[in-house]
This record gives sequence, C-alpha cells and structure tokens, in this order.
Amino acid sequence: MKSKPTGPIPAGFTAIDGELAIGGKPVTQIVEDAGRTPLFVYSRDRLDQRVAQLRAAMPQRIGINYAVKANPHPDVIAHMAPLVDGFDIASSGELARVLKQGVDAARVSFAGPGKRDDELEAAIAAGATLNCESEGEAQRSLAIARRLEKRARIAIRVNPSFELKGSGMKMGGGAKPFGVDAERVPELARHIIANGAEYRGLHVFTGSQALSAEAIIEAQANVLALAEELTEQIGAPLPKLNMGGGFGIPYFPGDEPLDIAAVGAALADRVANLPQALSDTELCIELGRYLVGEAGVYLCRVIDRKVSHGTVFLVTDGGLHHQLAASGNFGTVVRRNYPVAIATRFDADPDEVVNLVGCLCTPLDRLGDAVLLPSAEPGDLVAVFCAGAYGASASPADFLGHGAAAELVV
Amino acid sequence: MKSKPTGPIPAGFTAIDGELAIGGKPVTQIVEDAGRTPLFVYSRDRLDQRVAQLRAAMPQRIGINYAVKANPHPDVIAHMAPLVDGFDIASSGELARVLKQGVDAARVSFAGPGKRDDELEAAIAAGATLNCESEGEAQRSLAIARRLEKRARIAIRVNPSFELKGSGMKMGGGAKPFGVDAERVPELARHIIANGAEYRGLHVFTGSQALSAEAIIEAQANVLALAEELTEQIGAPLPKLNMGGGFGIPYFPGDEPLDIAAVGAALADRVANLPQALSDTELCIELGRYLVGEAGVYLCRVIDRKVSHGTVFLVTDGGLHHQLAASGNFGTVVRRNYPVAIATRFDADPDEVVNLVGCLCTPLDRLGDAVLLPSAEPGDLVAVFCAGAYGASASPADFLGHGAAAELVV
Repeated sequence: MKSKPTGPIPAGFTAIDGELAIGGKPVTQIVEDAGRTPLFVYSRDRLDQRVAQLRAAMPQRIGINYAVKANPHPDVIAHMAPLVDGFDIASSGELARVLKQGVDAARVSFAGPGKRDDELEAAIAAGATLNCESEGEAQRSLAIARRLEKRARIAIRVNPSFELKGSGMKMGGGAKPFGVDAERVPELARHIIANGAEYRGLHVFTGSQALSAEAIIEAQANVLALAEELTEQIGAPLPKLNMGGGFGIPYFPGDEPLDIAAVGAALADRVANLPQALSDTELCIELGRYLVGEAGVYLCRVIDRKVSHGTVFLVTDGGLHHQLAASGNFGTVVRRNYPVAIATRFDADPDEVVNLVGCLCTPLDRLGDAVLLPSAEPGDLVAVFCAGAYGASASPADFLGHGAAAELVV
Repeated sequence: MKSKPTGPIPAGFTAIDGELAIGGKPVTQIVEDAGRTPLFVYSRDRLDQRVAQLRAAMPQRIGINYAVKANPHPDVIAHMAPLVDGFDIASSGELARVLKQGVDAARVSFAGPGKRDDELEAAIAAGATLNCESEGEAQRSLAIARRLEKRARIAIRVNPSFELKGSGMKMGGGAKPFGVDAERVPELARHIIANGAEYRGLHVFTGSQALSAEAIIEAQANVLALAEELTEQIGAPLPKLNMGGGFGIPYFPGDEPLDIAAVGAALADRVANLPQALSDTELCIELGRYLVGEAGVYLCRVIDRKVSHGTVFLVTDGGLHHQLAASGNFGTVVRRNYPVAIATRFDADPDEVVNLVGCLCTPLDRLGDAVLLPSAEPGDLVAVFCAGAYGASASPADFLGHGAAAELVV
C-alpha cells in the first residue's frame, strides 16, 4: 500500500528512552499516572511557551484573549488565567466554567448568535460583557438589565463586509448569522448608549484557522479601518476593540506555521499610527486554537493488529468519539491525515504502512489512512497531535457507549 | 434568496390545533412536559408501527435485532425489548445499558473492531455472544474465558468480498477493519470450536443506509451463499446467521422509502429454498436506524430572528452539538437539508426562505439552508425530523458548553 502523508508533528516533541515525552515525562508514565487510555494530555510548558512567543511578537498594546471554546478543561482555564488578558466565552456553561476558576467577570466577553434569556441574565448579573449579535438581542439584554437593576456591559459584534482570506472558516463577508451588519452598527450603538448600557466597544471576527500572515495582516487593517469609520459614525469614544483571531496552526501535509513575527510587525506599525478615533481604545486579539491546539496530544492504545486483504490495520481504543476532527468528519470536505506517531516507538524508523483506526464499529472511524510508521503491536500507544483544541469537547463522547477520554494537564 | 429543497418529512406526522403532534400530543405540550428545549422526542407509537410493518413484510423465520448504537436511550431500549428478538451492541457501555433494562444476555451480541480485554470479559461473564473481529481477538477471548472458567459464546464476523451497493457506508469488499476476511473464516471457526468455545455462527454486515430494495436483495443473496459456502468448509452446523442490516431511511430531497415488501418477498423466496447447510440455522437481520430513525424529532426554539444583507436567519437554541448529522458535518461530503418544519406552525403555508441555524458560534452550525417555511418569530419551535437515530448520542454535546439536549419518550 502506498503511504499518504501526515501533517507535521509540532516542533519540540522529543523522545525519552525511545518514547514520546510530554512535559518532560514519557507517555507510558503519563498513562500510568492517568490510569487509563484514551487520554488527552495538555502540556503547561507548551501553553507557557506559546503565550510567551506570542507576547514577544505582538506589540505590547495588544491584549490577548483566550477563546474558551477551544479547550474548556478547568485546569487549562486555570493555567491560562494569569497568562492572558481576557476570556471569550460562547455560552453560560463556559461562563460558569471561567467564574469557577476565579476569573474576574470584568475580563470576560460573551459572543454567540443564540444567547438565551437565562444566559443573558447570568452574564449581566456577573458583570461580563455581552458581544451583542443583533438588535433583538440588544433589546432583550436591555430589558433584562432593567429587570435586574444592573447596568449591562454591551459591545457590538460587527458583521464586516470583508472576510479573512484563506481562513478555514469564514465569519465575515455577506449574509451571516454572526453580528450586526456594519451599516446598522452606529444606530444600534447609539441606541444602547441612550438606553443606559455601558458601551464596551466593537467585536469583529473575520475568520479562523488562517496560516497566511498576509491574509491576517490585511484583515487586521480592515478591522482597524472599519472600527475607525464606525466610531466616527457612532460619535462616542471606542472603549475596546476585539479584533478577532484567525491565527491557524498546521494540521495537514504541506501546512506551514503562521509567521507571527510578520503579523506582529505589521500590527506594531498600525498601532504606532492609530487614527485619532482609536487613540485611547483598548485593543485585543482573541485566540483559541492557536494558544492551546499544539499543547495537546491524544493518546490511545493499540488493541488489535489485523491484516485484511494485505492491508495492516492497527485498531486502537480511541477514535472519532474523542477526536472527531482527526477522523475527517468535522468541518472538512476531503479527509487528510493529522500528524500521528507510535508514541512508544517515537524515535524508531518507520517501516510499515498501516491504517490507523478507532474502536468504533463504523468506517468513519479513521485516525490515519495509509500512514508510514514503525511497526507496532497491541499494547503500543498511538499519539495524535494537535489535539489541544476542538478535541475532547468537540467530539461525540457518547457515541457507541465507550465514554469520554481522560484529560490530564502535565 | 432561492430556496433549497429539504428532505421528506416522514409520513404520518399531523397537526393538532396548528401544531406538530407527536404521539398524539402537540409540541408545546411536549416541551412543557419536558421542561425545556432543545429536546429529542421519541414516539412509542412510531416504534411499534415500524416494527409491526417490518414483521408483516419479512418472513416469519427472520429474527429482528435492534442495533443499540442507533439510539441507546434507556427508555428506547426498554420499549424495544419486547418488540425485537435480539440486541446488537458495540461496547461494554452498551452492554451495561441493555442489561440494566433487563434484557437477557443470551439475546445480545457484541460486534466492534477494538474490543478491550475488560469488554470481552464483561461480555463473556454476562453470557453475551461475541462477534469476533479477528484472530487476535479470538485468542484473547478464549484466554479470558479460560481464566473466568466460562464457556465463551463466539460468532465470527466475516469481511465478505462483496459490498452492499448504494449504501451510505460500505462495510464489506476489500480491506476492512471489520471482521475476518472470508477465506480465513473456516480455519478460525474450527479453531474456536476446537478450543471449547460455543460456536454461535456468522455475522456478515455489508453496509448501511441503503434505499434500494434491489441492492439489499442482492446483498442478502450473497450473504446466504457465503454462509452456505463457509459452513460447508467449516464442517460444523451453523447455529445462527446475522445477515446484517443496511435498511435506510429517507433523509434528503429525492430520497424514496425503501420497499420492504420487495425485500421481504425476495427473502421469503430464499428462506423457502434454503440450502441444506442452512436448513436449521437461525436467521436474523440487524437494524438500528431503520427501526428508530423516523420515530424521533428534535425540537428547538427560535431565539432570534435577524436579517443580514437581506437574508433572514432564524437562530435557535439547538444546533450541531445535538444534531451533528443534520448540520452536514458527519459522514456526508455535500451538505443537504434534512426535513425540517416550524413545529408551532405546522399546517401554515410556507411563505419565507430562511437560514435555520444553531446557537453555536461557528459557521458549521446550520440546521437548514435556504428553506422555505412559514414565517416564524422568536418563541416558535423548530422540528428537525429523522432524529431518532444517530442524533443525541452521535453529537458533540459538550461543544461550546451548552450541554446535552433533553430526551423524552412519548
């Protein structure tokens, strides 16, 4: 069988005694500590390094928010709390999670197109900022604030007329369920201010998972220009601008890491020459996957090694119920291989082409198609990289009754 | 906006006082009973009717198994228990679920390519039949049975050289992680028998979600011929043959219901003329989706009605975290619309083209693209049909922290 390429293993993973090490520990020891497979392992070191690299690349003025949806594990939230400036949440469930970790609600902003009344109430009561997605949501928020006798903190999410080019998911340009069309934003902002809410500024999210610095630079320029234009039309100071995220990580063959130095340099230029309307504005970017994605590894164990019509299958105890995106069934049209390895033979030479599958009784459950790996046996551990974001929480853990994976922060 | 077609609403759903009724109750009453949306509703009447229709169409000799993976809700399992002959499970989690509903383990068979030792042990201890997927798994099962001083009940899952044509998922033909290649089955069967296991027969699953009677008739003929050939080679009587399933339901525009009368008539012919090798064999088919899929409706509520660049979006409190397949992100390449309706205006004339979206902050979260529906407002209930199978349990309930949907059997 001819092998198919896999995505690049994130830089910096090395072997100890032949085994993949995460946070300085070999995987068999990590699995022993966790007590079982399958297991998501998130590395504190890698989280620290990633934020440090990003801080070094970005101008100091730019705040960094963590988008909790990427990985809502309590220990990950707790670890990120002192590292980042703010938290972006997408539900009252995420609000409860960040508050439980002691995060000040003043650092929290809540975006999402379908906020229920009870979610708006929880956020207003806590003092989090609502990134308002529509005129209707603004009305509901104002009414709830009046009832609670609280002052709602409201930013407006803008649906811009431009998009983040080359992004995995476009969230701007044309008709969208997210935000308020740019041309209607000034009226809504004035309405919110006139009705006693604390106007917290604008949120513009143009796309996600982009690997082109040029595209991100262009989108950020467009966001700043749009914020300037809207602020002039609104006629009130802009307290804060959330410029969105979009910083991608390499998952697939041929993907190259984003050049954050280039993004940071361009942003520094813009920040040094901000227009009058934005001169006192607090600026931030909002990142999820970029901060945590490469810090996570999904470990599962080979249960069976079988041959069918000359093809070797390594059947693991993991699968798409934990790592849906790696199986190619979430947001991708053509299945491509994530970076994978035999974690217990991490420095061995690859000598066999195998299909790596999960334990689910469905042909959708593939972790690696025709991948070239060192020969493995039942008992070996398999690593699927780039598992720190949109892994455990974005997979159907109840599917086929195997239950959720363990999660461990090391 | 030009409308796009939706799949056909399953026959038999009617309105009471203008509202969709399920099991004789209007949806607002059902939601009131459940206490919240989003909500999966499964109808006992429809489950009963479906099994009755199937029994009427199939020859009496053919047993009907329920594949629990399609819908493992405890009340659904309990309701199916007296209706079907056996239960097919895919994990020890599903084993625990059927045993908890009082199902006799002698009626249970366990398939799945990655059974862990603890799963084999649980099944052997309970007395369930293992549908053995490989020589390695057979060895592990025999060893565990010896250790437990139990006699393992083992059937062999066969990877046939043919497939179910036109099926949504092919599970036979060529190299597969499922079952043992047909040519190696006789040796394995003799080995199992020689090692003291109770040989329970063969399991041949060729594919799923087929709507062509002709294709299913052909696959069943192939399965019977293969079972005859293998049984002659094995040289021991065939106690049971699980012929697999593959009976599909219409989801998408243009899909037509499977002609089960034609399938049953062809099968009756074959059963009346069984070869000697199969004359005493217990025969069954294994169905999941076909039994429960159309009995379920997913109900969510419109939270916001917004307009972006002239397009109307109905934003609901539901989404892909409950109904992943309906969003087009699970096992489908091209997104098409499931059957949907405004449940609270079920008999109103459609007069508006809208995008029906979930509450998640991702462009993947679409329940209906450009669907023609009666105009709806916040507070209205939306129904997504064909939600009885691979809905709640096959969706990433933790994604974005909104939590699982309620489930109710009426």
